[in-house]
Amino acid sequence: MSLIEDLNWRHAVKAYDPTKKVSKKNIDKIVEAARLAPTSSGLQPFRLIVVEDQETKEKLVKGALNPDCMRDCSHVIVFAAWDRYTAERIDKVYDFTTDERGLPRGRFSSYTDMLKSIYLKESAEENFAHISRQAYIGLGLALAQAAELRVDSTPAEGFDTHVVDEVLELEKHGLKSVSLMYVGYANPEEDWIASMKKVRIPTEEFVIEK
Amino acid sequence: MSLIEDLNWRHAVKAYDPTKKVSKKNIDKIVEAARLAPTSSGLQPFRLIVVEDQETKEKLVKGALNPDCMRDCSHVIVFAAWDRYTAERIDKVYDFTTDERGLPRGRFSSYTDMLKSIYLKESAEENFAHISRQAYIGLGLALAQAAELRVDSTPAEGFDTHVVDEVLELEKHGLKSVSLMYVGYANPEEDWIASMKKVRIPTEEFVIEK
Repeated sequence: MSLIEDLNWRHAVKAYDPTKKVSKKNIDKIVEAARLAPTSSGLQPFRLIVVEDQETKEKLVKGALNPDCMRDCSHVIVFAAWDRYTAERIDKVYDFTTDERGLPRGRFSSYTDMLKSIYLKESAEENFAHISRQAYIGLGLALAQAAELRVDSTPAEGFDTHVVDEVLELEKHGLKSVSLMYVGYANPEEDWIASMKKVRIPTEEFVIEK
Repeated sequence: MSLIEDLNWRHAVKAYDPTKKVSKKNIDKIVEAARLAPTSSGLQPFRLIVVEDQETKEKLVKGALNPDCMRDCSHVIVFAAWDRYTAERIDKVYDFTTDERGLPRGRFSSYTDMLKSIYLKESAEENFAHISRQAYIGLGLALAQAAELRVDSTPAEGFDTHVVDEVLELEKHGLKSVSLMYVGYANPEEDWIASMKKVRIPTEEFVIEK
């Protein structure tokens, strides 16, 4: 199997079978693909909240654009981004990186000073716009990993971030939700989009060659 | 091979061998992975500019944070996002989709009306923040595809978007650059990061379970 075959296989599932659960092993692989995502300056400024508990999912239903997916999927994975960059957060990542590499702390201080001089003078909104993009690299890889495992999934925006952030107590982690990913197995009777052709704009329109 | 093995294999290459070129077939696959990326409401609001021409790359050098990568890589792929959502752009995508699926145009008009009611009252900046995230789903998948092919790559931000947009005449396409992806084969003598351990934050810190 190849990534392109996996991406052609997947689609954004519209209805899940509530009796089918995704194994822990497969959830771990989906999470691992997102954890391995490259991010700007290696800061990994996002986290995954994996929700399996049905009661928690029911609380999230009122913030969901697709309440049936929320209820019936096996797991909801919430992609949540740092609310902003801080000197402490940047230093923590680089201290960990140098420790892991057996290098003296501060080895990359001219680089981290440069990052701080850029990010800390931006507004929280500007920071968050940049941080959210990084989370979407992880989202893409998590969706690809689910497809490789032939696990169904649905990326979902358009939810009420206040509800999700509050139910999952994201503020205390310094996080804000940016995207949901429903994971499970489709209910083929109700998944109306499954029989429709996958449509993407033609390559000649998608690519400009120089 | 699996996606996780591919992601563990890759790293952000710091120096390329200018004598080694990536085949057209492999570039096409990298582009295809990005084209197949899921995007919000299926709008695919980004394009790829594939730059192979050395003279064009030289013009881009003055906007690059890593000029040597720009010069020595085989191809630069520029991820460029719509500058904003418009009714015409949304309708064009949905007209194409319904045509491809043999459905009457307007079949999804209540959905596209909803999209327009949200996006068209936002500022161009708010639109662009949302659109840029979608491009990063494609960026993640393109990086994964390069890794599957054992083609080296480097995702790069921190470049001068004005230089890139001007050299590539992106404004006339209604696009603005959001990320670069250098593609090629590393120069192992100069790629100082290759020998360093790949570091990611531990899973128990990356994931919150509910």
